[in-house]
Amino acid sequence: MTVAVYLPLDDKTQWWVDMLQSLLPGWSVEAMNAVTDPAAVEYAVVWRPRTGDMARFPNLKAIVSIGAGIDHVLSDEQLPAGVPIIRTVGDDLTQRMREYVALHVLRHHRDMPRQLRAQNESDWHAIVVPVAPQRTVGVMGLGNLGAAAARTLADLGFATRGWSKSAKTIEGVTTFAGPDQFDAFLSGCEILVNLLPMTSQTSGILNADLFGKLAKDACIINCARGGHLVDDDLLAALESGTIKQATLDVFHVEPLPADHAFWRNPAITVTPHVASQIDAGTGGRIIAANLETFESTGTCADLADAVRGY
Amino acid sequence: MTVAVYLPLDDKTQWWVDMLQSLLPGWSVEAMNAVTDPAAVEYAVVWRPRTGDMARFPNLKAIVSIGAGIDHVLSDEQLPAGVPIIRTVGDDLTQRMREYVALHVLRHHRDMPRQLRAQNESDWHAIVVPVAPQRTVGVMGLGNLGAAAARTLADLGFATRGWSKSAKTIEGVTTFAGPDQFDAFLSGCEILVNLLPMTSQTSGILNADLFGKLAKDACIINCARGGHLVDDDLLAALESGTIKQATLDVFHVEPLPADHAFWRNPAITVTPHVASQIDAGTGGRIIAANLETFESTGTCADLADAVRGY
Repeated sequence: MTVAVYLPLDDKTQWWVDMLQSLLPGWSVEAMNAVTDPAAVEYAVVWRPRTGDMARFPNLKAIVSIGAGIDHVLSDEQLPAGVPIIRTVGDDLTQRMREYVALHVLRHHRDMPRQLRAQNESDWHAIVVPVAPQRTVGVMGLGNLGAAAARTLADLGFATRGWSKSAKTIEGVTTFAGPDQFDAFLSGCEILVNLLPMTSQTSGILNADLFGKLAKDACIINCARGGHLVDDDLLAALESGTIKQATLDVFHVEPLPADHAFWRNPAITVTPHVASQIDAGTGGRIIAANLETFESTGTCADLADAVRGY
Repeated sequence: MTVAVYLPLDDKTQWWVDMLQSLLPGWSVEAMNAVTDPAAVEYAVVWRPRTGDMARFPNLKAIVSIGAGIDHVLSDEQLPAGVPIIRTVGDDLTQRMREYVALHVLRHHRDMPRQLRAQNESDWHAIVVPVAPQRTVGVMGLGNLGAAAARTLADLGFATRGWSKSAKTIEGVTTFAGPDQFDAFLSGCEILVNLLPMTSQTSGILNADLFGKLAKDACIINCARGGHLVDDDLLAALESGTIKQATLDVFHVEPLPADHAFWRNPAITVTPHVASQIDAGTGGRIIAANLETFESTGTCADLADAVRGY
C-alpha cells in the first residue's frame, strides 16, 4: 500500500512521513509532492490539502484528515465523490482540548488579563469574582471534544450548559438542542466556548446577533474554526463593550497575518492553533492504526460523514 | 454577646461589622477600635490582629480567624494562652482555591507566559507541551484546601502527587508523608503547589535546597503564606534557570511593596492574595454560624489546634 502525505509545511510533512513509515513498515509512505506514480496511491493523509490534490489519485481508498475536523478536506472543489474520509481523534486530543478549555475559561472567569495589567503597574488590585457555581459557561458543539470539555467545566464547579444540533445528555451539564433552543442556551451565558464542527450551517455563527444574546460582559473562546467567527463583529462588540474579552485559537487565515487587528487588541488573547494540536508521535499511532483497520476491514470507527460534514 | 472585629483596613472592618451584625441580630458587633467596654467583649473576629489586641479583652471566649490559617493570630506575642481559635473554612473557600490552583497549574503547563510574549510580538509561535498525564504536579499540604486542589488536578488528568505531615489517601493522587518521603515527593515534580499551613517547621520551606530537588524547568505556585518562601532564593533560582516560572499569591509583606523585585520579574506572576479570598457575604454566614454553635455548645467543628498551629 502506498500512502501520500501532505501538510502545508514541507518540514512538517517530512516529519509525518518518517513517523508513519516507521509505524507502517510494510507500507510505502511518501510526501505527496514526491509521488511519481499517482495510480499507486491508495491512501492520502492530509492537513489542508490544495484544490485538486486528491483528484490526482485515481485509486484512492480513503483520505485521512490529520485532525478531528474534515472541513479542510471538503473545501476542495475537485474532491472525488464517494471517497471515505477518516477523522483523527483520540484520548490525547480530547485531553489537550479539555486542558485548553479549562485554562481559558478559568482565565476569563478570574479575569487574568486585568490581573496581569495590574501587575504591570505594580498595583495591588484584588479582583474578587463570583465562585464558579455562580458563573454560567456554555459549550457550543457536543461531539467528542465538546462533550469532554463541558464535563470538565462542570467538574470544576461551573454552572455548565451545552448546545448541539441533536439532543445529548451529559452528567452535570444542562443541555439544549437545535435552533429552537439556541436563544435559551445563549441567554445568561457569561463565557461561551465554541467547539462546533465547521459546516455551512455553523459558518459565521459567532456574530453580532449571537453576541447580543449573551450575558453582559460575556467572554468568547473559539477553539473550533476561524470561519465560525465574523472578525469585524467581534472587534465591534469588544469596542462597544457587548463582549468583554475573547480567546481565539483559530482564524480565517493561518498563520494569522502579522498586521491583523487581533494581535494587538488588549481584550483578545491569540493562541496559534494549539488548543488540541496533534503531535506526530501520538497522532501517527492513531492514524497508522486507523489505516491498518481500514485496509483489513474496509471501515473504521473514526469514519466521518461527508454529507453531515463531520 | 459582644463581638469585636478587626481587619487592617478600616473600611473593610466596617463592611464585616455590618454584615455580622445583620446575621447576629441578638448580638452586639463592634469595630475593635471603637470598643468602649473591653470586659464585655466575648468574641474577637480578626484578620492580622496587632500585637496586644487580644490581651485587651479579659473575658474572651474564642477568637475567630477570618481565613483558614491561624498563623496571623498566633504571631501575637501577647496572645492570651488557652483561648480557643476558630478557623473559617467552607465550600466556598475550597471552591475558590480549586479554581486558582487549576488555573495557574494549567497556565504553567501550557506556558501561557511565553505564549503571551509571542502575541506581543505578533509571532505565530506554537508551543507544544506534553499532555497532562505526562506532567507531574505536586501539592504540598493536604488539608481541606490542599486535598481538594490535588483531586482537581488529578481530575484534569495531571500525574498528581501530594505530600503532608501525616499520611493521607486521596483518590487518583500518589501521596507521600513526613520528612522521610519529602525528597521522593519532590523528585521529578514539574509544577509544585504550596498549600501547607504556616508553622515553625514549614517557614522558609520553599528555598534553594528544595528548588534543586525538583525537575528541570520546574514551576512554583505559592498560595499558602509568604513566609513559606525565601524570596532571594527564588530570584536566584529564576536567574540561574533552576526554576522556570513562579506564581505567587502571598508575600512576607502585604500589600507587596511597589519596589519589590517580584512585580517586574517576567518569570513571576503576582496575584494580590486572591486565591481564596473570603467575601463578607459568604464568610459572614460561616462565621456567624460558628459563633452561634460555639456560644451554645462550647465548641465547633472548625476549632483549630493552637499547639499544632493549624
